[in-house]
Amino acid sequence: MEKLQNKIREEGVALSDSVLKVDKFLNHQIDPQLMHEMGKEFASKFEKEGITKIVTLESSGIAPAVMTGLILNVPVIFARKKKSLTLTEGLITSKVYSYTKQETNEVSVSNKFLSKEDNVLIIDDFLANGQAALALIDIVEKIEATVAGVGIVIEKAFQDGGAVLRTKGYRVESLARIQSLSDKKIEFVKEKEQV
Amino acid sequence: MEKLQNKIREEGVALSDSVLKVDKFLNHQIDPQLMHEMGKEFASKFEKEGITKIVTLESSGIAPAVMTGLILNVPVIFARKKKSLTLTEGLITSKVYSYTKQETNEVSVSNKFLSKEDNVLIIDDFLANGQAALALIDIVEKIEATVAGVGIVIEKAFQDGGAVLRTKGYRVESLARIQSLSDKKIEFVKEKEQV
Repeated sequence: MEKLQNKIREEGVALSDSVLKVDKFLNHQIDPQLMHEMGKEFASKFEKEGITKIVTLESSGIAPAVMTGLILNVPVIFARKKKSLTLTEGLITSKVYSYTKQETNEVSVSNKFLSKEDNVLIIDDFLANGQAALALIDIVEKIEATVAGVGIVIEKAFQDGGAVLRTKGYRVESLARIQSLSDKKIEFVKEKEQV
Repeated sequence: MEKLQNKIREEGVALSDSVLKVDKFLNHQIDPQLMHEMGKEFASKFEKEGITKIVTLESSGIAPAVMTGLILNVPVIFARKKKSLTLTEGLITSKVYSYTKQETNEVSVSNKFLSKEDNVLIIDDFLANGQAALALIDIVEKIEATVAGVGIVIEKAFQDGGAVLRTKGYRVESLARIQSLSDKKIEFVKEKEQV
Protein backbone atom coordinates (compact mmCIF):
# COMPACT_ATOMS: atom_id res chain seq x y z
CA MET A 1 0.00 0.00 0.00
CA GLU A 2 1.81 3.00 -1.34
CA LYS A 3 0.21 5.60 0.90
CA LEU A 4 1.30 3.65 3.97
CA GLN A 5 4.82 3.13 2.63
CA ASN A 6 5.12 6.87 2.04
CA LYS A 7 3.88 7.58 5.54
CA ILE A 8 6.42 5.15 7.00
CA ARG A 9 9.18 6.76 4.92
CA GLU A 10 8.20 10.25 6.02
CA GLU A 11 7.24 9.68 9.64
CA GLY A 12 8.69 6.33 10.71
CA VAL A 13 11.92 6.18 12.66
CA ALA A 14 14.25 3.16 12.69
CA LEU A 15 15.38 3.15 16.31
CA SER A 16 17.61 0.12 15.78
CA ASP A 17 18.06 -2.76 13.34
CA SER A 18 14.79 -4.26 14.55
CA VAL A 19 12.67 -1.49 16.07
CA LEU A 20 10.56 0.80 13.91
CA LYS A 21 8.83 3.67 15.66
CA VAL A 22 5.56 4.73 14.05
CA ASP A 23 4.02 6.55 16.97
CA LYS A 24 3.22 9.56 14.81
CA PHE A 25 0.36 7.83 12.97
CA LEU A 26 -0.26 4.35 14.44
CA ASN A 27 1.01 3.53 17.93
CA HIS A 28 0.33 6.67 19.90
CA GLN A 29 -0.94 9.38 17.61
CA ILE A 30 -3.35 7.91 15.06
CA ASP A 31 -4.09 9.22 11.58
CA PRO A 32 -7.79 8.39 11.17
CA GLN A 33 -7.84 8.99 7.40
CA LEU A 34 -4.95 6.59 6.91
CA MET A 35 -6.67 4.03 9.17
CA HIS A 36 -9.76 4.35 6.97
CA GLU A 37 -7.67 3.78 3.82
CA MET A 38 -6.09 0.75 5.47
CA GLY A 39 -9.51 -0.54 6.45
CA LYS A 40 -10.60 -0.31 2.79
CA GLU A 41 -7.45 -2.13 1.72
CA PHE A 42 -7.92 -4.99 4.20
CA ALA A 43 -11.62 -5.16 3.32
CA SER A 44 -10.89 -5.45 -0.39
CA LYS A 45 -8.29 -8.17 0.18
CA PHE A 46 -10.64 -10.28 2.30
CA GLU A 47 -14.08 -9.33 0.94
CA LYS A 48 -14.60 -12.71 -0.75
CA GLU A 49 -13.79 -14.70 2.38
CA GLY A 50 -17.16 -14.30 4.10
CA ILE A 51 -15.62 -12.80 7.22
CA THR A 52 -18.00 -12.76 10.21
CA LYS A 53 -15.72 -11.32 12.92
CA ILE A 54 -12.46 -9.44 13.23
CA VAL A 55 -10.15 -10.18 16.15
CA THR A 56 -7.34 -7.82 17.11
CA LEU A 57 -5.15 -7.03 20.11
CA GLU A 58 -5.29 -3.88 22.22
CA SER A 59 -4.27 -1.12 21.78
CA SER A 60 -2.66 -0.36 18.43
CA GLY A 61 -4.61 -2.97 16.49
CA ILE A 62 -7.95 -1.39 17.36
CA ALA A 63 -7.98 1.55 14.92
CA PRO A 64 -7.20 -0.42 11.73
CA ALA A 65 -9.45 -3.28 12.87
CA VAL A 66 -12.43 -1.04 13.56
CA MET A 67 -12.09 0.67 10.17
CA THR A 68 -11.97 -2.73 8.47
CA GLY A 69 -15.01 -3.82 10.48
CA LEU A 70 -16.83 -0.66 9.45
CA ILE A 71 -16.33 -1.49 5.78
CA LEU A 72 -16.90 -5.26 6.00
CA ASN A 73 -19.83 -4.55 8.37
CA VAL A 74 -18.77 -7.09 11.01
CA PRO A 75 -18.04 -6.78 14.74
CA VAL A 76 -14.49 -6.36 16.03
CA ILE A 77 -13.22 -8.04 19.18
CA PHE A 78 -10.08 -6.79 20.83
CA ALA A 79 -8.18 -9.33 22.88
CA ARG A 80 -7.17 -7.95 26.24
CA LYS A 81 -3.68 -8.02 27.64
CA LYS A 82 -4.88 -7.42 31.16
CA LYS A 83 -7.92 -8.96 32.75
CA SER A 84 -10.86 -6.66 33.17
CA LEU A 85 -12.94 -6.47 36.35
CA THR A 86 -16.20 -6.78 34.47
CA LEU A 87 -14.87 -9.48 32.19
CA THR A 88 -13.89 -12.55 34.14
CA GLU A 89 -15.97 -15.54 33.11
CA GLY A 90 -15.52 -17.71 30.05
CA LEU A 91 -12.18 -16.30 28.99
CA ILE A 92 -10.19 -18.08 26.30
CA THR A 93 -6.54 -17.25 26.85
CA SER A 94 -3.22 -17.74 25.13
CA LYS A 95 0.32 -16.75 25.98
CA VAL A 96 2.41 -14.22 24.07
CA TYR A 97 6.14 -14.00 24.57
CA SER A 98 7.43 -10.55 23.78
CA TYR A 99 11.05 -10.58 22.60
CA THR A 100 11.29 -6.80 22.91
CA LYS A 101 9.96 -6.74 26.47
CA GLN A 102 11.32 -10.21 27.34
CA GLU A 103 8.19 -11.17 29.18
CA THR A 104 5.26 -13.53 28.70
CA ASN A 105 1.77 -12.09 28.82
CA GLU A 106 -1.62 -13.67 28.58
CA VAL A 107 -4.11 -12.34 26.10
CA SER A 108 -7.75 -13.21 26.38
CA VAL A 109 -11.07 -13.10 24.57
CA SER A 110 -14.49 -13.85 26.00
CA ASN A 111 -15.98 -17.05 24.61
CA LYS A 112 -19.32 -15.24 24.33
CA PHE A 113 -18.32 -13.42 21.17
CA LEU A 114 -16.92 -16.22 19.03
CA SER A 115 -18.50 -19.48 17.96
CA LYS A 116 -17.61 -22.45 15.74
CA GLU A 117 -19.50 -20.86 12.88
CA ASP A 118 -17.31 -17.75 12.83
CA ASN A 119 -14.92 -17.02 10.01
CA VAL A 120 -12.34 -14.73 11.56
CA LEU A 121 -10.00 -12.13 10.14
CA ILE A 122 -7.14 -11.37 12.52
CA ILE A 123 -5.71 -7.86 12.31
CA ASP A 124 -2.66 -6.48 14.07
CA ASP A 125 -0.35 -3.50 13.75
CA PHE A 126 2.98 -5.34 13.52
CA LEU A 127 4.17 -8.80 12.49
CA ALA A 128 7.70 -9.61 13.69
CA ASN A 129 8.22 -13.06 15.17
CA GLY A 130 4.52 -13.85 14.94
CA GLN A 131 3.94 -14.39 18.66
CA ALA A 132 0.93 -12.09 18.93
CA ALA A 133 -0.71 -13.38 15.73
CA LEU A 134 -0.13 -16.99 16.81
CA ALA A 135 -1.78 -16.28 20.18
CA LEU A 136 -4.83 -14.76 18.47
CA ILE A 137 -4.98 -17.72 16.06
CA ASP A 138 -4.71 -20.08 19.04
CA ILE A 139 -7.67 -18.38 20.73
CA VAL A 140 -9.82 -18.53 17.58
CA GLU A 141 -8.96 -22.20 17.03
CA LYS A 142 -9.60 -23.12 20.67
CA ILE A 143 -13.17 -22.02 20.00
CA GLU A 144 -13.05 -24.11 16.80
CA ALA A 145 -13.82 -21.08 14.68
CA THR A 146 -12.02 -20.64 11.33
CA VAL A 147 -9.09 -18.32 10.75
CA ALA A 148 -9.77 -16.83 7.31
CA GLY A 149 -6.55 -14.86 7.28
CA VAL A 150 -4.27 -12.41 9.00
CA GLY A 151 -4.10 -8.74 8.06
CA ILE A 152 -0.99 -6.90 9.18
CA VAL A 153 -0.25 -3.20 8.91
CA ILE A 154 3.56 -3.49 8.99
CA GLU A 155 5.41 -6.77 8.53
CA LYS A 156 9.07 -6.94 9.47
CA ALA A 157 9.93 -9.33 6.67
CA PHE A 158 13.46 -9.78 8.08
CA GLN A 159 11.98 -11.58 11.09
CA ASP A 160 10.41 -15.00 10.77
CA GLY A 161 6.78 -14.42 11.81
CA GLY A 162 5.49 -14.09 8.25
CA ALA A 163 7.24 -17.29 7.15
CA VAL A 164 6.00 -19.17 10.22
CA LEU A 165 2.39 -18.20 9.59
CA ARG A 166 2.50 -18.79 5.82
CA THR A 167 4.20 -22.17 6.27
CA LYS A 168 1.37 -23.16 8.59
CA GLY A 169 -0.99 -22.34 5.73
CA TYR A 170 -2.45 -19.07 6.92
CA ARG A 171 -3.09 -16.33 4.42
CA VAL A 172 -1.15 -13.28 5.55
CA GLU A 173 -1.73 -9.90 3.92
CA SER A 174 0.62 -7.14 4.99
CA LEU A 175 0.05 -3.55 3.87
CA ALA A 176 3.76 -2.75 4.13
CA ARG A 177 6.68 -5.18 4.31
CA ILE A 178 9.99 -3.98 5.69
CA GLN A 179 13.08 -5.64 4.24
CA SER A 180 15.58 -4.05 6.56
CA LEU A 181 16.10 -1.38 9.20
CA SER A 182 19.89 -1.67 9.08
CA ASP A 183 21.86 1.52 9.64
CA LYS A 184 18.60 3.15 10.70
CA LYS A 185 17.46 3.12 7.08
CA ILE A 186 13.97 1.86 6.28
CA GLU A 187 13.93 -0.43 3.25
CA PHE A 188 10.82 -2.10 1.91
CA VAL A 189 10.54 -5.50 0.25
CA LYS A 190 10.67 -4.77 -3.49
CA GLU A 191 7.34 -4.72 -5.31
CA LYS A 192 7.69 -8.05 -7.16
CA GLU A 193 8.75 -9.74 -3.91
CA GLN A 194 5.68 -8.47 -2.07
CA VAL A 195 3.42 -11.42 -1.25
CA MET B 1 -28.32 9.56 21.36
CA GLU B 2 -31.25 7.24 20.94
CA LYS B 3 -29.43 4.51 19.02
CA LEU B 4 -26.86 4.22 21.79
CA GLN B 5 -29.51 4.20 24.51
CA ASN B 6 -31.32 1.39 22.71
CA LYS B 7 -28.08 -0.55 22.40
CA ILE B 8 -27.40 -0.09 26.12
CA ARG B 9 -30.95 -1.22 26.96
CA GLU B 10 -30.65 -4.29 24.72
CA GLU B 11 -27.06 -5.35 25.33
CA GLY B 12 -25.84 -3.60 28.47
CA VAL B 13 -25.81 -5.48 31.77
CA ALA B 14 -25.99 -3.77 35.17
CA LEU B 15 -23.61 -5.94 37.21
CA SER B 16 -24.18 -3.91 40.36
CA ASP B 17 -25.49 -0.50 41.45
CA SER B 18 -22.44 1.11 39.89
CA VAL B 19 -21.00 -1.22 37.23
CA LEU B 20 -22.45 -1.32 33.73
CA LYS B 21 -21.07 -3.97 31.42
CA VAL B 22 -21.10 -3.00 27.75
CA ASP B 23 -18.54 -5.47 26.48
CA LYS B 24 -20.85 -6.56 23.67
CA PHE B 25 -20.39 -3.35 21.68
CA LEU B 26 -17.81 -1.08 23.35
CA ASN B 27 -15.34 -2.55 25.85
CA HIS B 28 -14.37 -5.87 24.30
CA GLN B 29 -16.46 -6.50 21.21
CA ILE B 30 -16.89 -3.29 19.24
CA ASP B 31 -19.77 -2.38 16.94
CA PRO B 32 -18.01 -0.34 14.22
CA GLN B 33 -21.25 1.07 12.75
CA LEU B 34 -22.32 2.34 16.14
CA MET B 35 -18.84 3.81 16.69
CA HIS B 36 -19.20 5.62 13.36
CA GLU B 37 -22.60 7.00 14.40
CA MET B 38 -21.11 8.12 17.69
CA GLY B 39 -18.23 9.74 15.84
CA LYS B 40 -20.75 11.71 13.73
CA GLU B 41 -22.59 12.76 16.88
CA PHE B 42 -19.45 13.98 18.68
CA ALA B 43 -18.30 15.70 15.49
CA SER B 44 -21.60 17.55 15.11
CA LYS B 45 -21.55 18.66 18.76
CA PHE B 46 -18.01 20.04 18.54
CA GLU B 47 -17.73 21.02 14.86
CA LYS B 48 -17.80 24.76 15.63
CA GLU B 49 -15.04 24.55 18.20
CA GLY B 50 -12.11 24.44 15.79
CA ILE B 51 -10.78 21.18 17.24
CA THR B 52 -7.20 20.41 16.17
CA LYS B 53 -6.56 17.19 18.12
CA ILE B 54 -8.50 14.49 19.92
CA VAL B 55 -7.03 12.91 23.06
CA THR B 56 -8.37 9.64 24.45
CA LEU B 57 -7.25 6.83 26.73
CA GLU B 58 -6.44 3.28 25.68
CA SER B 59 -8.16 0.95 25.00
CA SER B 60 -11.92 1.49 24.93
CA GLY B 61 -11.72 5.18 24.06
CA ILE B 62 -9.86 4.52 20.82
CA ALA B 63 -12.73 3.37 18.59
CA PRO B 64 -15.11 6.30 19.26
CA ALA B 65 -12.18 8.76 19.21
CA VAL B 66 -10.86 7.52 15.86
CA MET B 67 -14.32 7.73 14.26
CA THR B 68 -14.69 11.29 15.55
CA GLY B 69 -11.22 12.09 14.23
CA LEU B 70 -12.16 10.64 10.86
CA ILE B 71 -15.13 12.98 10.58
CA LEU B 72 -13.49 16.09 12.06
CA ASN B 73 -10.36 15.26 10.04
CA VAL B 74 -7.94 15.66 12.95
CA PRO B 75 -5.35 13.33 14.52
CA VAL B 76 -6.19 11.25 17.58
CA ILE B 77 -3.72 10.64 20.40
CA PHE B 78 -4.32 7.81 22.80
CA ALA B 79 -2.78 8.26 26.25
CA ARG B 80 -0.99 5.13 27.39
CA LYS B 81 -1.53 3.41 30.69
CA LYS B 82 1.73 1.55 30.46
CA LYS B 83 5.00 2.91 29.25
CA SER B 84 6.06 1.79 25.82
CA LEU B 85 9.59 0.68 24.97
CA THR B 86 9.75 2.88 21.91
CA LEU B 87 8.10 5.81 23.66
CA THR B 88 10.17 7.01 26.56
CA GLU B 89 11.29 10.58 26.07
CA GLY B 90 9.28 13.72 26.63
CA LEU B 91 6.32 12.10 28.30
CA ILE B 92 3.71 14.24 30.00
CA THR B 93 2.09 12.16 32.71
CA SER B 94 -0.77 12.38 35.15
CA LYS B 95 -2.15 10.04 37.80
CA VAL B 96 -5.51 8.30 37.62
CA TYR B 97 -6.99 6.68 40.69
CA SER B 98 -9.37 3.88 39.76
CA TYR B 99 -12.09 3.36 42.38
CA THR B 100 -13.15 0.08 40.79
CA LYS B 101 -9.62 -1.33 40.71
CA GLN B 102 -8.49 0.59 43.83
CA GLU B 103 -5.17 1.43 42.32
CA THR B 104 -3.37 4.50 40.99
CA ASN B 105 -2.00 4.40 37.48
CA GLU B 106 -0.04 6.84 35.45
CA VAL B 107 -1.23 7.81 32.02
CA SER B 108 1.05 9.52 29.59
CA VAL B 109 1.19 11.36 26.29
CA SER B 110 4.27 12.31 24.32
CA ASN B 111 4.87 16.06 24.28
CA LYS B 112 5.70 15.77 20.56
CA PHE B 113 2.07 15.56 19.53
CA LEU B 114 0.52 18.46 21.42
CA SER B 115 1.45 22.13 21.45
CA LYS B 116 0.13 25.35 22.97
CA GLU B 117 -1.76 26.09 19.78
CA ASP B 118 -3.86 22.92 20.00
CA ASN B 119 -7.54 22.99 20.75
CA VAL B 120 -8.26 19.58 22.15
CA LEU B 121 -11.38 17.44 22.33
CA ILE B 122 -11.09 14.75 25.00
CA ILE B 123 -13.06 11.57 24.35
CA ASP B 124 -13.57 8.62 26.66
CA ASP B 125 -15.88 5.64 26.95
CA PHE B 126 -17.13 6.21 30.51
CA LEU B 127 -17.46 9.14 32.88
CA ALA B 128 -17.98 8.11 36.50
CA ASN B 129 -15.96 9.99 39.12
CA GLY B 130 -14.08 11.88 36.42
CA GLN B 131 -10.60 10.66 37.36
CA ALA B 132 -9.63 9.60 33.82
CA ALA B 133 -11.01 12.76 32.19
CA LEU B 134 -9.28 14.96 34.80
CA ALA B 135 -5.97 13.22 34.10
CA LEU B 136 -6.33 13.81 30.35
CA ILE B 137 -7.30 17.44 30.99
CA ASP B 138 -4.26 17.77 33.27
CA ILE B 139 -1.97 16.48 30.53
CA VAL B 140 -3.43 18.85 27.91
CA GLU B 141 -3.16 21.81 30.28
CA LYS B 142 0.40 20.94 31.31
CA ILE B 143 1.26 21.49 27.65
CA GLU B 144 -0.75 24.74 27.84
CA ALA B 145 -3.03 23.59 25.05
CA THR B 146 -6.76 24.36 25.30
CA VAL B 147 -9.41 21.85 26.34
CA ALA B 148 -12.33 22.57 24.01
CA GLY B 149 -14.55 19.98 25.64
CA VAL B 150 -15.05 16.44 26.79
CA GLY B 151 -17.03 13.88 24.79
CA ILE B 152 -18.22 10.87 26.76
CA VAL B 153 -19.96 7.77 25.44
CA ILE B 154 -21.68 6.79 28.70
CA GLU B 155 -21.94 9.08 31.70
CA LYS B 156 -22.91 7.61 35.05
CA ALA B 157 -24.87 10.67 36.09
CA PHE B 158 -25.33 9.22 39.60
CA GLN B 159 -21.59 9.65 40.20
CA ASP B 160 -20.01 13.06 40.55
CA GLY B 161 -17.57 13.21 37.62
CA GLY B 162 -19.94 15.11 35.33
CA ALA B 163 -20.68 17.71 38.02
CA VAL B 164 -16.99 18.08 38.88
CA LEU B 165 -16.04 18.74 35.26
CA ARG B 166 -18.97 21.05 34.53
CA THR B 167 -18.37 23.04 37.73
CA LYS B 168 -14.79 23.57 36.62
CA GLY B 169 -16.23 25.08 33.43
CA TYR B 170 -15.55 22.29 30.96
CA ARG B 171 -18.13 21.53 28.32
CA VAL B 172 -19.11 17.87 28.72
CA GLU B 173 -21.21 16.14 26.07
CA SER B 174 -22.35 12.64 26.92
CA LEU B 175 -24.10 10.49 24.34
CA ALA B 176 -25.96 8.54 27.03
CA ARG B 177 -26.50 9.51 30.67
CA ILE B 178 -27.37 6.82 33.17
CA GLN B 179 -29.55 7.92 36.08
CA SER B 180 -29.38 4.69 38.01
CA LEU B 181 -28.32 1.06 37.91
CA SER B 182 -30.18 0.16 41.12
CA ASP B 183 -31.70 -3.31 41.29
CA LYS B 184 -29.73 -4.14 38.14
CA LYS B 185 -32.10 -1.95 36.14
CA ILE B 186 -30.66 0.55 33.68
CA GLU B 187 -32.39 3.92 33.88
CA PHE B 188 -31.44 6.91 31.79
CA VAL B 189 -31.59 10.57 32.76
CA LYS B 190 -34.91 11.79 31.37
CA GLU B 191 -34.80 13.68 28.10
CA LYS B 192 -35.48 17.18 29.48
CA GLU B 193 -32.81 16.66 32.14
CA GLN B 194 -30.21 15.66 29.53
CA VAL B 195 -27.54 18.33 29.44
